Amino acid sequence: MSSSIEVTSFKGSEKNGIVESTSHRQGPTGNDVLVKITHSGICGTDEHYKHVDMVLGHEGVGIVEQIGDRVTRHKVGDVVGWGYVHKTCGECEQCLIGQDQYCSNNETYGNANFHQGSFGSHAIWDASFVFKIPDGLAPEDAAPLMCGGATVFEIIESYDVRPTHRIGVVGVGGLGHLAVQFLAKMGASVVVFSSTESKRAEAMRLGATEFCVTRDKKSFDVGKLDHLIITTSFMPEWKPFLDVLKPRGTIYPLTVDYSDFVIPMMPLVFSGFNVQGSLVASRIVMQRMLEFAAKNSVKPMIEKFPLTRDGVVEGMTKLREGKMRYRGVLVAA
Amino acid sequence: MSSSIEVTSFKGSEKNGIVESTSHRQGPTGNDVLVKITHSGICGTDEHYKHVDMVLGHEGVGIVEQIGDRVTRHKVGDVVGWGYVHKTCGECEQCLIGQDQYCSNNETYGNANFHQGSFGSHAIWDASFVFKIPDGLAPEDAAPLMCGGATVFEIIESYDVRPTHRIGVVGVGGLGHLAVQFLAKMGASVVVFSSTESKRAEAMRLGATEFCVTRDKKSFDVGKLDHLIITTSFMPEWKPFLDVLKPRGTIYPLTVDYSDFVIPMMPLVFSGFNVQGSLVASRIVMQRMLEFAAKNSVKPMIEKFPLTRDGVVEGMTKLREGKMRYRGVLVAA
Repeated sequence: MSSSIEVTSFKGSEKNGIVESTSHRQGPTGNDVLVKITHSGICGTDEHYKHVDMVLGHEGVGIVEQIGDRVTRHKVGDVVGWGYVHKTCGECEQCLIGQDQYCSNNETYGNANFHQGSFGSHAIWDASFVFKIPDGLAPEDAAPLMCGGATVFEIIESYDVRPTHRIGVVGVGGLGHLAVQFLAKMGASVVVFSSTESKRAEAMRLGATEFCVTRDKKSFDVGKLDHLIITTSFMPEWKPFLDVLKPRGTIYPLTVDYSDFVIPMMPLVFSGFNVQGSLVASRIVMQRMLEFAAKNSVKPMIEKFPLTRDGVVEGMTKLREGKMRYRGVLVAA
Repeated sequence: MSSSIEVTSFKGSEKNGIVESTSHRQGPTGNDVLVKITHSGICGTDEHYKHVDMVLGHEGVGIVEQIGDRVTRHKVGDVVGWGYVHKTCGECEQCLIGQDQYCSNNETYGNANFHQGSFGSHAIWDASFVFKIPDGLAPEDAAPLMCGGATVFEIIESYDVRPTHRIGVVGVGGLGHLAVQFLAKMGASVVVFSSTESKRAEAMRLGATEFCVTRDKKSFDVGKLDHLIITTSFMPEWKPFLDVLKPRGTIYPLTVDYSDFVIPMMPLVFSGFNVQGSLVASRIVMQRMLEFAAKNSVKPMIEKFPLTRDGVVEGMTKLREGKMRYRGVLVAA
């Protein structure tokens, strides 16, 4: 049960970018599981940590290989996935109200102590934060859902996004192309905003009801929106978007950077607009998201790379250059 | 019923500040009521319109003197109040969902067509947007509730502000001193933030549970907040406030100016913070607010001025200079 396992990992590093590292780990104890990683999504957030000495990757999918003596949630052979949050305290207010991704004592991807990323051969995780991949969802398709899918589904499930609403999705990329599918599959109207015409056909095929080219436009000729989900890494020029947002509509800026969020004050107050920050998903939302995706055939569009150092570098580079259509997935040999 | 009435009004003007104007109006018809104004609050928003040729004032209280032939909601002799919204379409989505202050076809204070402000002798208003002042609420105390009270109560009533929450109120002024009372009277914990010690005793007497001096502080030693209501006319330095806001806590910037709202992106997303714009109150919230204030003895602290041109000028000047404690009320002779 606790024999030594050779683990290969791909880590960030202060100087040299991606580093391959081999170590030996004891098998899982207590409530931990050892997962043989088969797939890992590549997320833009990985980019922020590539200079940190930690294993990258937080869209992991694999097969349970060993379990600790207290594990009841999973068994050897299960196909499971895991994401941003490794462990929470289970006691703070955020945990008790089911918003455990905001646990103030959590261990998450990006923490200095976090060495359990999914760019590698194996990971040992607390079984409570590992999710069974439902039948009908291919492991390679499940991987991008563990962070990208979770991030957009959290908005749909935890806030007041309803099938009767019209939702704007700004940007067709890793997050955006999943948001469009989730929203379309729940019967909602989806207006996709993209800088050029190039992704129109794809957006409509994914379920968009309207497609709006934004470049050089001072106003948008689209139906009024209840929600606006921003999946681009930069915030747009607000005016034409605020002009098509209903009073009390909500804006969700999903991607993070170190800048300020800036929005004009008068429309914010006079139209009662709302700006809602949101971070991946709670555990219950993760479970519901996976079930919804499996039931309704939400399927990421992926490009595959080998789960090797070269594969990691190639995939991260393509994402950084904005060329990924739309989510990179590392696949173990 | 429709005999001519001499109406005195105090208006803004492009060049000369406050102007006294006399006109003759026909009495009310249809669903309109003629109100003899007895009291009017002075709100900071009046300042924004003092260069516009419109009657100022949107915290009116008075006595119904005449009613149009279709009025059933009020009768002659009723003590009534009215505020920011004069009329709404009753048909748009915002009206249908009871958020009628955001009606896209409304007539509100600040509209170019709006000539029915409360700085004057009389006003003619649609009876549906005039509210009976409950017994036990003095007309002079009711006046500041029509905008100032409504603005803070809208947050409490329309968003998820609960008696079990801890709410930060930034600024003790016209809005802040009412927010503290409403929140205290619903049993919530209220942390008052003020730049200096000067208002501590008053804030505690109004019902605050904690008082925090902000000037020159890098961190605040207060309990963690579920909500943060900003009643100052400028936004604070965010860091110490965000440090005491719970994950998924909400910030309500209540005062408007023509600048941008700026907040750092990382905490917004990583803590799931929410920024909620909010504008006065819907009609149902106005009614509930007045009933709650009367039942629970929420009582504005007011300074009185005569309802004359000189009184308007004196009151607006005192408010502009930040010396009002805490709401000016114009009183008819």
